[in-house]
Amino acid sequence: MSPKITGELLRLLRQTMRNCKYFSEPIHAYIVPSGDAHQSEYIAPCDCRREYICGFNGSAGTAIITEQHAAMWTDGRYFLQASQQMDSNWTLMKMGLKETPSQEDWLISVLPENSKVGVDPWIIAADQWKNMSKALTSAGHSLVAVPDNLIDAVWTDRPERPSTQLRTLGLEYTGISWQDKITKLRAKMTERKISWFVATALDEIAWLFNLRGADINYNPVFFAYAIVGMNSIRLFVDLKRLSDPVVRDHLQLDSPSLPELSIQTFPYESVYTELQAICAALGPRDKVWICDKASCALTQAIPKVHRSPIPYTPLCLAKAVKNVTEIKGMKMAHIKDAVALCELFAWLEKEIPQGNVTEISAADKAEELRSQQADFVGLSFPTISSVGPNGAIIHYRPLPETNRTLTVNEVYLIDSGAQYIDGTTDVTRTMHFGTPSAFEKECFTYVLKGHIAVSAAIFPNGTKGHLLDSFARAALWESGLDYLHGTGHGVGCFLNVHEGPCGISYKTFADEPLEPGMIVSDEPGYYEDGSFGIRIENVVLVVPAKPKYNYRNRGSLTFEPLTLVPIQVKMMNTELLTQKEKDWVNEYHRRCREVVGAELERQGRMEALQWLIRETQPIM
Amino acid sequence: MSPKITGELLRLLRQTMRNCKYFSEPIHAYIVPSGDAHQSEYIAPCDCRREYICGFNGSAGTAIITEQHAAMWTDGRYFLQASQQMDSNWTLMKMGLKETPSQEDWLISVLPENSKVGVDPWIIAADQWKNMSKALTSAGHSLVAVPDNLIDAVWTDRPERPSTQLRTLGLEYTGISWQDKITKLRAKMTERKISWFVATALDEIAWLFNLRGADINYNPVFFAYAIVGMNSIRLFVDLKRLSDPVVRDHLQLDSPSLPELSIQTFPYESVYTELQAICAALGPRDKVWICDKASCALTQAIPKVHRSPIPYTPLCLAKAVKNVTEIKGMKMAHIKDAVALCELFAWLEKEIPQGNVTEISAADKAEELRSQQADFVGLSFPTISSVGPNGAIIHYRPLPETNRTLTVNEVYLIDSGAQYIDGTTDVTRTMHFGTPSAFEKECFTYVLKGHIAVSAAIFPNGTKGHLLDSFARAALWESGLDYLHGTGHGVGCFLNVHEGPCGISYKTFADEPLEPGMIVSDEPGYYEDGSFGIRIENVVLVVPAKPKYNYRNRGSLTFEPLTLVPIQVKMMNTELLTQKEKDWVNEYHRRCREVVGAELERQGRMEALQWLIRETQPIM
Repeated sequence: MSPKITGELLRLLRQTMRNCKYFSEPIHAYIVPSGDAHQSEYIAPCDCRREYICGFNGSAGTAIITEQHAAMWTDGRYFLQASQQMDSNWTLMKMGLKETPSQEDWLISVLPENSKVGVDPWIIAADQWKNMSKALTSAGHSLVAVPDNLIDAVWTDRPERPSTQLRTLGLEYTGISWQDKITKLRAKMTERKISWFVATALDEIAWLFNLRGADINYNPVFFAYAIVGMNSIRLFVDLKRLSDPVVRDHLQLDSPSLPELSIQTFPYESVYTELQAICAALGPRDKVWICDKASCALTQAIPKVHRSPIPYTPLCLAKAVKNVTEIKGMKMAHIKDAVALCELFAWLEKEIPQGNVTEISAADKAEELRSQQADFVGLSFPTISSVGPNGAIIHYRPLPETNRTLTVNEVYLIDSGAQYIDGTTDVTRTMHFGTPSAFEKECFTYVLKGHIAVSAAIFPNGTKGHLLDSFARAALWESGLDYLHGTGHGVGCFLNVHEGPCGISYKTFADEPLEPGMIVSDEPGYYEDGSFGIRIENVVLVVPAKPKYNYRNRGSLTFEPLTLVPIQVKMMNTELLTQKEKDWVNEYHRRCREVVGAELERQGRMEALQWLIRETQPIM
Repeated sequence: MSPKITGELLRLLRQTMRNCKYFSEPIHAYIVPSGDAHQSEYIAPCDCRREYICGFNGSAGTAIITEQHAAMWTDGRYFLQASQQMDSNWTLMKMGLKETPSQEDWLISVLPENSKVGVDPWIIAADQWKNMSKALTSAGHSLVAVPDNLIDAVWTDRPERPSTQLRTLGLEYTGISWQDKITKLRAKMTERKISWFVATALDEIAWLFNLRGADINYNPVFFAYAIVGMNSIRLFVDLKRLSDPVVRDHLQLDSPSLPELSIQTFPYESVYTELQAICAALGPRDKVWICDKASCALTQAIPKVHRSPIPYTPLCLAKAVKNVTEIKGMKMAHIKDAVALCELFAWLEKEIPQGNVTEISAADKAEELRSQQADFVGLSFPTISSVGPNGAIIHYRPLPETNRTLTVNEVYLIDSGAQYIDGTTDVTRTMHFGTPSAFEKECFTYVLKGHIAVSAAIFPNGTKGHLLDSFARAALWESGLDYLHGTGHGVGCFLNVHEGPCGISYKTFADEPLEPGMIVSDEPGYYEDGSFGIRIENVVLVVPAKPKYNYRNRGSLTFEPLTLVPIQVKMMNTELLTQKEKDWVNEYHRRCREVVGAELERQGRMEALQWLIRETQPIM
């Protein structure tokens, strides 16, 4: 991986910073967050501004350019990757390390007195704007909204915003009509005395209307905004997309059943002026809900007295709790996904000794096998297919220049997933096709113990996911090891593979308590820089548990694994496992064999079936 | 326990709310927090305003009185106690339960439009004022500062503010002079470009000046404020207290060595005007540090442009990390404390079968035995001495009307501690002097497993205490049980038994990472309402750990128990313990026997020594 050469680009950008038409004085620093106007994690090529300016293409990172400096903040998943993708014009700021300054502190330390710091108000979230603005102001500087994006100004060949075909989802996939979702949303609004709700997150809008798109790679979403009032539904989207009669019928655009369920459509770009118009007509006590992670631009379009910011929206929470239909779909998607992975691993076992499988070809094979499954739409994120030292790059993605050949001498880590119409998958397995070293097995076993500790945990109703994070680390910690990423994230149903508002992380954020129907990942790991990476990831469903007692009638919860792919026994040092942990492995493998075995048989994939049977032998 | 009759009091208070001289309209609601002007947890009798108005005397709780309603919010430790101490005029608001409204939500639901909510600005913390004011304002009400406390207005026999003799502590106890503490504080201020620091917490002021008082029961503190600038130290205290030549000499009041280490003294009451004067003379860039938990009154005396609020002060953090001298003192204090408790338990074992030991007499005996130890000053909190059902009242304190006799049929829980000049202790043991039931043993063993899981945990440097909380609960959760309080709190050194900024709790707050030298409690429990209570509490010291590996050179930490009192083996169901847990118990008991045994022998307390030897037999 060679770094992007950014000297000339930075020179051009600094020129635009000095000569911005909206300000008489130069902009001393310009902040380039990684998101789009919807604060999406994955973004369309036209929105990859941070990557364009610095070369680093990971999913999280913020670049800041001053007259003298250029620095980029990212987290532990990306330290290695970022250092390889950025040239010497850039300073990598390793978030989470004690010695790394925050963006605010760094700016304050490098800026001359009374500096102007610019940012695109559509790209920065309202809460981030607020924190940054406060810190800068208290140090005598100011944060200013620059109407035109300065990266776009120097990006001559910037791609167009996508506008892909919309796909409608019927009740057999969603379990609930968009009309009923609107009604439930309005009930929440009534309960909290809210007049209007502004939806800005693309997955929430797709979920609300039971529509999917393909505007962003891996995420079946489409560029849109929605504003819902008690008697009004306004959808902002490229209007060309609504000419499809199937979509028109689904949304009842031509013949709404009830006036309050009639959707008014507007061009995507008109959301700002339309929201301003709505706000101009508000009564003195009217309140507008908007997520505090929505863009600063849209948030500030709502006058402060009417604005009611929330850490996550009612759609976000409703979407997180899957209904019976969605759970059935997610289970089916995971069985199909397991079929593809069993085939992949059986194939790898045969092919690796021939020496002609690479990280890229293994990833391609995985995609090919998945694409043979019913209702396959695409991948849910770029496959992490990594061998040996590449495995230690947490969010590695094989490129021709880094591509390694799989051998019987190195640990192989594959983190992959797919979008099926009935559900989204995300699974990581770490395998050795020869003889793993004692240290590799030891680390794998600690990671497995952490995985099991979370998966088998029983905890009271009302428990937040972050309280489970340490369970995943205890075995590693005991040996002085750890991993620098969270343990789990919410997973959408034929939606984004990462979604809120729940998760399992040492970072405490405003997560909601776990409740039955929520689906999260359980993915502890261990990464030995320059040597190997280990991660064991299942997607798990929150289900009620029935322990011996029921303190204060609170009820208990636990997890049911949806992912049903064998965990390689060869990598385990079974002497380090307790009897309970061995029982968990055996019961898990029994279910893999029973459920996925039946499907493999039905699909006539006998070689993979043989592999599954061999890999699910009980351990003693 | 009979409730306080509050009908007439409430009538009088509502009359003052209607006729407050500072406002033309009535005050519709009046908030009575539990603290004093220093936001102390334990308070002097003159500050027990919340107790005076509602009868509930637990350490945490807020009362709110409106024209029609009177409600009191407290947490799970106090649900039973509060319901017993308050009469039917009061509604108990059980914090932490889903159905319990927040104070803000409740006020908004009961108040008529455009209401005035009053509070004493000296008693409410600045951050609480801010949150409450924001919530009320957004609902069309207003929060107003009422200069005279309205409880004091109806409290005819209110006690005087105490002004006890000051005690000076030499380097043999503190390890560092107050002059060096000031110098270190100023270094932090320089680092953060801060001109002034306002100290309002009584324990921070006592720690800073190496002085102790006895103004508040159990807490060796004295009423004072301090304001420190780069060339100025101002101490606000009842000036009579400074006539003692020992104190004058300690503070070098008459012959300061260096001008910048010269202390100016002012009357306690003049802090507000003096702070105003300091602020009036500030330069445009001068910043003043004040804790965001300081009183609203004092915080607002600092103009907003100069105010730099912090979640905890540099003194709070410095005080939390004990130096070598303090650690030595804390260890000695815990050995003496263990001597007293071994004697107590040996005595109880003999006396209980005679039927003449009660909760109160057992607590008195514990105090008597502690008072025989060197450098004993007093108790560090009211002893919780509770039998059977009283044990389920988490912060129970025996009163004549609730006093039960200890028998061989019920579980006995004693949570007690003392102030010695060399350190502060806090220990809970749960014992059965007959034959415990299988369920009592089962619950005790789960609590023990949780206690060990925290105490033996190894975790990376930089870990915050709240990440360890679930370790204490995992065994209980697995059986559907839990406890409704945190797992641990910081412990002062001859200072408050509860101190920040670290702790172990499911409540995530702005806690600082644990570091070597910090001292916290480890006290999981289980409470079966109407039947029994179990808690196992040690005070533990954060120490470096040396596990097999050292990931990224971060280093690891663990805990060393300072408390060395046997944990009753009779209460354990050893079948539920793993070998590792049994090893921990045996090693802990070996240390108790070795360290406390030697001291018992030195003091010639042979009966207690016999008891200790018997209670520390290894389990198999």
